[in-house]
Parts: sequence; structure tokens; C-alpha cells
Amino acid sequence: MSTRRHFIRNISLSTLGAYTLMDWKPASALSFFNSDAVLKVALLGLGGYASRVAEAIQQCQRVKITGLISGTPEKLKQWGEKYKVPEKNRYNYQNFDAIKNNPDIDAVYVITPNALHHDQVIRSAKAGKHVICEKPMAISAKEGREMIEACKKAGKQLLVGYRMHFEPLTLEVVRMRSAGELGAIRFFQGLCGFRIGDPTQWRLNKALAGGGSLMDIGIYALNGSRYMVGEEPVWVTAQETKTDPVKFKEGVDETITFQLGFPSGAEASCLSTYNMNNLDRFFLNGDKGFAELQPAAGYGPIRGKTNKGPLDIKNPLPQQTIQMDEMAAILLDNKKPIVPVDGEEALKDLVLIEAIYKAVKTGGQVKLNAER
Amino acid sequence: MSTRRHFIRNISLSTLGAYTLMDWKPASALSFFNSDAVLKVALLGLGGYASRVAEAIQQCQRVKITGLISGTPEKLKQWGEKYKVPEKNRYNYQNFDAIKNNPDIDAVYVITPNALHHDQVIRSAKAGKHVICEKPMAISAKEGREMIEACKKAGKQLLVGYRMHFEPLTLEVVRMRSAGELGAIRFFQGLCGFRIGDPTQWRLNKALAGGGSLMDIGIYALNGSRYMVGEEPVWVTAQETKTDPVKFKEGVDETITFQLGFPSGAEASCLSTYNMNNLDRFFLNGDKGFAELQPAAGYGPIRGKTNKGPLDIKNPLPQQTIQMDEMAAILLDNKKPIVPVDGEEALKDLVLIEAIYKAVKTGGQVKLNAER
Repeated sequence: MSTRRHFIRNISLSTLGAYTLMDWKPASALSFFNSDAVLKVALLGLGGYASRVAEAIQQCQRVKITGLISGTPEKLKQWGEKYKVPEKNRYNYQNFDAIKNNPDIDAVYVITPNALHHDQVIRSAKAGKHVICEKPMAISAKEGREMIEACKKAGKQLLVGYRMHFEPLTLEVVRMRSAGELGAIRFFQGLCGFRIGDPTQWRLNKALAGGGSLMDIGIYALNGSRYMVGEEPVWVTAQETKTDPVKFKEGVDETITFQLGFPSGAEASCLSTYNMNNLDRFFLNGDKGFAELQPAAGYGPIRGKTNKGPLDIKNPLPQQTIQMDEMAAILLDNKKPIVPVDGEEALKDLVLIEAIYKAVKTGGQVKLNAER
Repeated sequence: MSTRRHFIRNISLSTLGAYTLMDWKPASALSFFNSDAVLKVALLGLGGYASRVAEAIQQCQRVKITGLISGTPEKLKQWGEKYKVPEKNRYNYQNFDAIKNNPDIDAVYVITPNALHHDQVIRSAKAGKHVICEKPMAISAKEGREMIEACKKAGKQLLVGYRMHFEPLTLEVVRMRSAGELGAIRFFQGLCGFRIGDPTQWRLNKALAGGGSLMDIGIYALNGSRYMVGEEPVWVTAQETKTDPVKFKEGVDETITFQLGFPSGAEASCLSTYNMNNLDRFFLNGDKGFAELQPAAGYGPIRGKTNKGPLDIKNPLPQQTIQMDEMAAILLDNKKPIVPVDGEEALKDLVLIEAIYKAVKTGGQVKLNAER
């Protein structure tokens, strides 16, 4: 346990000096382990990714699964027994607003199909709980804004499950870039995708997913462009190709390439696909050096190298374990993460996703407002 | 010598079965070493790259430098002594049409700034010599068509200096793709560029270069897209960024990203730049496997890997040595190369370069005619 804590503390402290470009507040950062309070989390949606999160939480220092919300009674029973969540803390989608009166639950982690996030996040906030929501935050920027507003109104925090924002190699590259070690950034590339299986799954259903590969996997390249370059894009262009219109129906993108232009003149060129394996690579190039992560956004281990050699950072913990412990610190101690994970951060991705879909349709460049 | 020959023969024979998609004629391919005739070459333009070519030719089996053409008398003297080219075979840009009457010269290799190729190639053909021309073949498709026409009229062959078309690892990836070992091709990526030095060099002069990085280095990614995917693109989109308008003046592109769409639905996403190092990567992805070359277009050694592991092909010879010996076989024995290197092939790149520049200007997709 002390090794673990020492490891995480080291990530925070060793990178402390570098994040002048970000909203990094040393005082709150140092407060990470001022508290040992445990975040009591209810998982909402007990599917495949929730299983991974639940297992990772077992290694957390400061997070405990105290509630379960599912539409499937057998899952509630199985998961309840496995994770020792008493019956009184198990809910379905009809009655989970009653968590309002349950002091065993501090926060709800929403892990359901994208189109359900909006309603479930707002109901959780109205029930007086912090909310962690899987990415993409919602299926439109309009929904995202409403979710932010609802959480603000309820006086609760909204975080989005950007696990890479806490991944040690990722943060080391962000540190190098922020510290100027790569020089002026010229180019970022994110290639993210996989060949998706079962054609009947919700990810291939426009009504539930809100789109295709870009919503689910391309968002890593998109989001990565922003935190790797360290700027917000001012224009976007995009191209779509579809080789299988039966599997990838209208509104469900199979493959999209997109380019983002940044104020400095840096450019990002990215690929998002549901129809290729052998991808998962980030490449950041500056006029003094480069950094490469490959794999870059998988569940781990992430591997990387720079112009100076391999990135030799050992990480013994699942990404979701680090993510959840850090989120506990954000929610309970007001820690500021190095790369933001709040609703406003996630909304920026939704605005860009809409701009990319628009650019695909118009075939031209879509300019982005500095004001969002 | 026999090891050399054995090596090259193996490249040809082992790949023989696979090139059904290309204009591959076993009969002529097998004729490669039917002849031992030596190609007598005059180098036109004695700059930096010509030095590299001249040195590489020293290891050739079937090529000899027999003529020199330059505007600088001292260079003619130095090179003439170094490569044992007698005074009677040395010419300047005013009098080199007289090679017409010189039986010591079979072919002229034009290695001058891009804007000069058109005139020098046409004069060489009119003088009754085969022509090898450095890439890009010319600064416009119109010029390229005129050069092809002039060589045809003179009954002489026109080849363009695409050295990668003979590079063993490159050819192995082409073979794998042609043989279906990578499955249906979905994506190609070529990242080509370097930080260019001296701002006064001809490559940064629009009048001499005809453009910027795309003409000089981006053409490797562009040309590579075509032979790696094995199709001709039907649309192109492109984006330009410029961070240094003093060094990279109007009409001289610093950085361009471009995308090519192919009939099968495959897409290429490429980068061309004069302002970044740490690039030089080809990545070809199919639904059964991938191939990566990195470096992909440098002077060597090229390194590669596929989904099956490292590409373990040893190549003891400079790329230009293989290129020139193969070009001797093309010109003297009518050998058909695996990837074409003739004027028509080079013209396709010029048409695409113009489409990319047009796409940058219009900001939209430029459709390409099947008919060129």
C-alpha cells in the first residue's frame, strides 16, 4: 500500500513544476493525500466495461462500490453478492432516484450506452450525488450543456471517464511538451480504432450510440490531440469512408479521418475506425523532439518512446484503478487534475465531434469559435 | 559479384507470382540478365544528389558514367578526372545538344532543379538519348505530358528517378499486399519530411522548385500511397499550415496534410513537410495484417515490420546502385519493373500534386478523373 501511494504521489510531485500552461494549482494538488476519505460509488449500468471498472476498484485506496443500478435483477444479485453491496443499495432504472436518501452513496458512475447518459446523469445529480459519466459524455453538445447545467444547479461535480488523463506515460509526454522539451509543437497524430464484432451491439445503433467509431474510439485521438498539442483547435476538416454499409448504417461512421488546425500552426491528423486493427498510436512532433505512444489508448500497458529513448515508466496498476483513486481526490479533496476531466472538458470534445460530422457532410473546413 | 546478382535475381524471382495487379510480364522480367550490356550515362547537373548517384554507380554492374554536363567548368574538370570521363564527353548547358553525335552516351540522367527538367529532358530526347529524370518529373502536369510526348516522338524511353520502386523492403510489402497477405487494404499512411536548412536554396524558390515540400519530399508519401494501396485515387482533400512565411514564401508549401480516397474504400492520410524531423514512416493496414516501414523513404537502410514480425531483408547496396542497374535493364533489355518508373507513372503524381494544391486552395474535395 505504501508503495502504491508513493508511486502516485511521485507522478504528481515530479511533474509539478511543468504545468504552467494548465490550470494546475499546487495547493490543491498537494492536498491529494491530505484526506483518506473513501468515495462511495454506485455503478449505473452493469455491462462489460462496468465489470472492468468494478475489478479495478478492488485495488483502489479510496474508492468503494457501495451501490448498484441495473435493469437486470439477476445482475444486481450476482454483482451484489460479489462486491458485497447489500440489497438496500441495489436499484433499477425506475427507482434509482431514491439514492437521494441513501448516505451510503457519494457518487454515481454512469456506464451505459451514450444516448442514456443525459437522462441518467441529470437524475443522479438531482438525487444529490456527484456523477462520473463514461465518454462520450453525451450524444450532442446540447445534451452536454444541459448535463453541466443540471450538475451545477444541484451543486454536484460532473466528471467524465477519461482514463488516459491519469495514465503515467501519457502524463509524462504532456509534461515534456509543457516543459518545452519537444520545442514548438508542429504535428500530432492519433490513430485509434479496432474491428468491431457483433453487428447487433448498441455501439452500431445510431439511436443508442449517437454515431459510430468517432463517438467510441476516435474520441481518444480527438481528445488526445487537445491535451498533447496543449491548444484548442480553430478549424477542422474530415473525410469519411465506408466499405460496409450493411454493418455500418446511416449515421454510424465506419472510418473517419480528421484534421485539426491549432492557433500556433500545429496540426493534428487523426484516424477513427471500427473496421481496422493494428492501430492505437499517438505521435507528437515538435521542432526539438518527438514522443510516440504505441499502444496509446488501450487498456494497457501503454508503451512509449521519445527522441531520448524508451519511456521507462512502470505502472503496476490498471488504468481504471488510478483513474478512480484520482477522481476520489478530485471529488473529495478538490484536487485539480493535470489534464481536466470535468464536464466542460468533455463538452469540448462533443463540440468537435459535431464539427467533424459537419465537415464530413460539407466536405469543407469548419471553423471553430474560440467561444464555446 | 555473383552474390550481388544472385541477390537481385532473388528479388525478382521470388516475387514473380504475386504481381497480377500490375503490368508485370514474366518474359521480360526474366530477360533481366539475358544481357550484360552496359548503360553509358551522362549526368546532367553535378550537385549534391548527383554526387550520391555518381558514387552509387561505382558499384553498378551495368552502368558507367561516360558523360558530364554542367554549367561549372571546374566541376566538369574535377568530376571528369574523378570518374575518368574524357574532355570530349564533357558538356555545358549551351552545347550539350551535341551529345547527339556522341556514341559514348546512351542516356542522360537529369539531376537539376525541378523547373529545368522540362527543357533538359526534351533536349536530351531530341539528341537521341534515353532520359532518366529526377523526381518530380516537372513542375506541372502540362510539362510532364510534353516531356512524354517529346520522348515518344524521339523514339526514346523516359524514366523517372523513383529509387524506392527498387528498394527490397518496399518491394516485399508490395508483394505481400499484391498476394493478399494483408487482406483488403483499408488505410495507408505516409509521413515524409525534414527540416530544411539554407533558406536561399533552390528548393525554397518557387520559380525553380515549382512548389515546396510536396514537390520534393511529400511526393514519396503521395507516390507511396499509390503503389502501397495498389489503386489510383478518386478523390483528394488537403490542408496547409505555415508557421514561417518568411522562409516558406508564397507558393512554397511548408507543411501539407492530404488524404486520398481509393475506389475500394481504402484511404491514404499523408503528411509532407519542410519543417519537421523525426518523420519518414509508411504504414499500410489491411483487414488481415499490416506493414510498417520506418524509415520508409530515406537513403537507407530502410527498416520494416509486419504483423508477422520484422522484415528481415538484408540489402548491402545503396538504393541508387540497385535503381541504376535496374534502369539499365529497363532501357537495354526492356525489362518491366514491378512498380513502374516511366513518364506516365510520374505524370500521375504531377496530376495528384496539382489536385492537392487545388484542394488546399478550395478547402474542399477534389475529384479525380479515371481518365488522365
